[in-house]
Amino acid sequence: MRTELERLVALDREQVLVAHIQAVLGWDQETYMPPKAIEERAEQLALLEGISHEKLVNSEIGRLLEALGSTTERPQGDPSLAPEERAYLRAMRRAYDQATRLPAELVTELARATSLSQAAWAEAREKNDFSAFAPHLEKMLELNKRKAAYLGPGKKPYDVLLDLYEPGSTEESIAAVFASLRRDLVALLAKITARPQVDDSFLLRKVEAERQAKMSEWLMHLLAYDEGRGRLDTTAHPFTTTLGTDDVRITTRYLEHLFTSSVFSTIHETGHALYELGIAPSPEFRRTKLSEASSMAIHESQSRLWENTIGRSLSFWKPNFAKLKTLAGPALDGVSVDAFVRAINKVEPSLIRTEADEVTYGIHVILRFELEAELMAGRLAVKDLPAAWNAKAKELLGIEPPNDTKGCLQDIHWSMGAIGYFPSYALGNLYAAQFWAKMRKDKPEIEAQIEAGDVAPVLSWLRENIHKPGAAYLPGELVERVTGEKLDARYFIEYLTDKYSKVYGF
Amino acid sequence: MRTELERLVALDREQVLVAHIQAVLGWDQETYMPPKAIEERAEQLALLEGISHEKLVNSEIGRLLEALGSTTERPQGDPSLAPEERAYLRAMRRAYDQATRLPAELVTELARATSLSQAAWAEAREKNDFSAFAPHLEKMLELNKRKAAYLGPGKKPYDVLLDLYEPGSTEESIAAVFASLRRDLVALLAKITARPQVDDSFLLRKVEAERQAKMSEWLMHLLAYDEGRGRLDTTAHPFTTTLGTDDVRITTRYLEHLFTSSVFSTIHETGHALYELGIAPSPEFRRTKLSEASSMAIHESQSRLWENTIGRSLSFWKPNFAKLKTLAGPALDGVSVDAFVRAINKVEPSLIRTEADEVTYGIHVILRFELEAELMAGRLAVKDLPAAWNAKAKELLGIEPPNDTKGCLQDIHWSMGAIGYFPSYALGNLYAAQFWAKMRKDKPEIEAQIEAGDVAPVLSWLRENIHKPGAAYLPGELVERVTGEKLDARYFIEYLTDKYSKVYGF
Repeated sequence: MRTELERLVALDREQVLVAHIQAVLGWDQETYMPPKAIEERAEQLALLEGISHEKLVNSEIGRLLEALGSTTERPQGDPSLAPEERAYLRAMRRAYDQATRLPAELVTELARATSLSQAAWAEAREKNDFSAFAPHLEKMLELNKRKAAYLGPGKKPYDVLLDLYEPGSTEESIAAVFASLRRDLVALLAKITARPQVDDSFLLRKVEAERQAKMSEWLMHLLAYDEGRGRLDTTAHPFTTTLGTDDVRITTRYLEHLFTSSVFSTIHETGHALYELGIAPSPEFRRTKLSEASSMAIHESQSRLWENTIGRSLSFWKPNFAKLKTLAGPALDGVSVDAFVRAINKVEPSLIRTEADEVTYGIHVILRFELEAELMAGRLAVKDLPAAWNAKAKELLGIEPPNDTKGCLQDIHWSMGAIGYFPSYALGNLYAAQFWAKMRKDKPEIEAQIEAGDVAPVLSWLRENIHKPGAAYLPGELVERVTGEKLDARYFIEYLTDKYSKVYGF
Repeated sequence: MRTELERLVALDREQVLVAHIQAVLGWDQETYMPPKAIEERAEQLALLEGISHEKLVNSEIGRLLEALGSTTERPQGDPSLAPEERAYLRAMRRAYDQATRLPAELVTELARATSLSQAAWAEAREKNDFSAFAPHLEKMLELNKRKAAYLGPGKKPYDVLLDLYEPGSTEESIAAVFASLRRDLVALLAKITARPQVDDSFLLRKVEAERQAKMSEWLMHLLAYDEGRGRLDTTAHPFTTTLGTDDVRITTRYLEHLFTSSVFSTIHETGHALYELGIAPSPEFRRTKLSEASSMAIHESQSRLWENTIGRSLSFWKPNFAKLKTLAGPALDGVSVDAFVRAINKVEPSLIRTEADEVTYGIHVILRFELEAELMAGRLAVKDLPAAWNAKAKELLGIEPPNDTKGCLQDIHWSMGAIGYFPSYALGNLYAAQFWAKMRKDKPEIEAQIEAGDVAPVLSWLRENIHKPGAAYLPGELVERVTGEKLDARYFIEYLTDKYSKVYGF
């Protein structure tokens, strides 16, 4: 049994190593690669995707899983195994089943098309030219439908994709959560908009990119992001990527007339990076399928908890605002910490998801969720996407994008083929709120500590409860294990109500 | 026949693709990788080296080569094939023979050890701690001896390594060329040192790294380095690396009190990059073993021709000096173009090879050649290298390094296992001089064009004569084909005599 498990881990590790190599190439493509290199880079990534796939669909893995008692029906394998071993087998079984159901040609084609699609998206976004991106999006949809048909034959294709990011979820289950979430958010929004608007005009004052870069570095350091195991670069769209167990990098972008964009995207991506860097199974499962996140939504709970729960709180800024003012230069002259915290928590419908406030954010996600469901079901044609997007933005947010760059071209996700990913963002907020409630229950002194300038206790609670087990628990198991309850949206609504009643005084 | 050739090219291309992926990881390791990522990066590179090796030793390649009439004895294959096809077969046969003679474990061990050795060298160099690097150098020597024993059983190990970089050369043949080269250089040096020394004190004036970066970008542009197919970054030691057919990157370093270091290293590396980017076989041989350099020395002829022949000439600086002064700021106030050109051609024994003048440079190479020959032969122990280096520096250059950082730790090559590489630098100077003589014969107007600010004719002559054929000709064939003569050191000595008689007025 021991030998078989060790062999399985050895095979798995090689595949993870290839995945990390792919991440190096992907990171380089987004940051420093010369533009004309894109064509061969697509071939390089396609080749690696092929190698990665080959390593994962290796029939020896199938035989080892079966020998260890893991089947599709009983993925955790032999009940006599240790809990961590069983969790590992389940994660491997899931990955193996997903991979073996996809033919190698489809995997290779997806990698190639994704690379070209991403480049086309970046250019289309810059030039506000949706038509240049449309054929790539069509291709991504077509390939994702083919992928879903292989992974879950007979199932609704969108359900199959959603399950990839949030195991166990379906269009129906998410639609149900979103229905209640929308209702509560709308009620809260009504309360807020009945109050006088806060002043955030000073946030639009110019702050040079160099100053913002210094802020980002300070924040990474403050949050204990180990610079020996990561770095910060600039890209069109911020992201976090894992190039190795000790190499998790983040990116941001500097908008000179909206410096809080980089401040909060850096905190957000740092939250993702801290999760990746904090996953710590037993040494024998280091750099395996167990060293991965529990789900996309759990990942998002970590970035959002740091960005919003901590990063937009008065407790966090009380001890840190003086330093921020020094780095910002004249832009924050005469601004008090209270005024700053009110401004960064201003609620107002806006066009860009990544710049949205915590109340309307969920609405941006719901818009994308509904549109991608329609695209996947074939009820919406790609060519009609800009019009559908704009109509829904008007309906849900009350405002219409002046162009596609600020509309349906704003996010990188669909260009990467990450269809079914968006809902995780909203689920992430719900998990974050529930974890935060439990953290304060476990450590009643934690807000006082944050207010004294010490965020280390937050990280240590997250490390122990959320980060360390990695993929050992499915998201539903994790939230129950940590908080003693199933996921419940009321924690999020309570958190928002508590915060905004103070910001808007109702 | 056609089908077999196409299949061979397809297999070859996959291997080249993997080599380019390795280059991406290598570039990242030297430029932006966080320090703690080094351990896994070594594993990533070892895995890729294994894959690359597997692809090259594929027995199908052996069968295809034989089917096409290529054997170790008659590498070019069937005489009825087109010349380019025969050249391709020869290049493939050489690569296949080299690869199949090495066991996979040795290849993997070399990759892993090299990655660790490079990191250890960088740290040892920074801390002036040779003892920390010594075990790595011993390992590199041991692995290289094992490598030589497999590649050329019964041959002198150092001969086998030299042939890897300069096909056809041996320790004896190089020692013969170096003996005559040393004699002539010493005679020239005596003439120079009998004259009053030129003033280059203004070259030590401070020029901020930001200003130097602007100079480097300007020079890359001036030399027509396509920024869509490459880029410039900073590293401890400048290099050029090919990450793709359309992705050739260079690096430099900025010494604030020696700005000409970055000026000339940028021109030097640009020369390497222009060669790589200019290789243009027929489309069917794009990104194959034919799309590689003819040899290391031919590569060095390109970097040296741009750096020294063009980049240190009065003709080049006459039209460009005004711009350089603008970029340099106060450092060049009151300096004339004549004074500048004299200063950048000052001859004086110094410690660092990459900063050496054209006359003493050869001596630096001879020092390394003699030491590595002794290390390989086992006549010199690694622990005695610093003392031997210092003694030889005193003997040949008349000066002794104050520490190993400025002595035997200055170059990256041995840490990379590139033993046998150094002689190529001196051979490169000889090739460059012979090409330059032919270029002026072919285009008598070329110096006037350079003096009018147009270096494009130099690049177009090099593109057509040297770059385009890539590895179609061995270095000896290339020089004869292009210049009508075998390699002859007199062109280099004539070039130096002509230049320095003007600089030093004898």
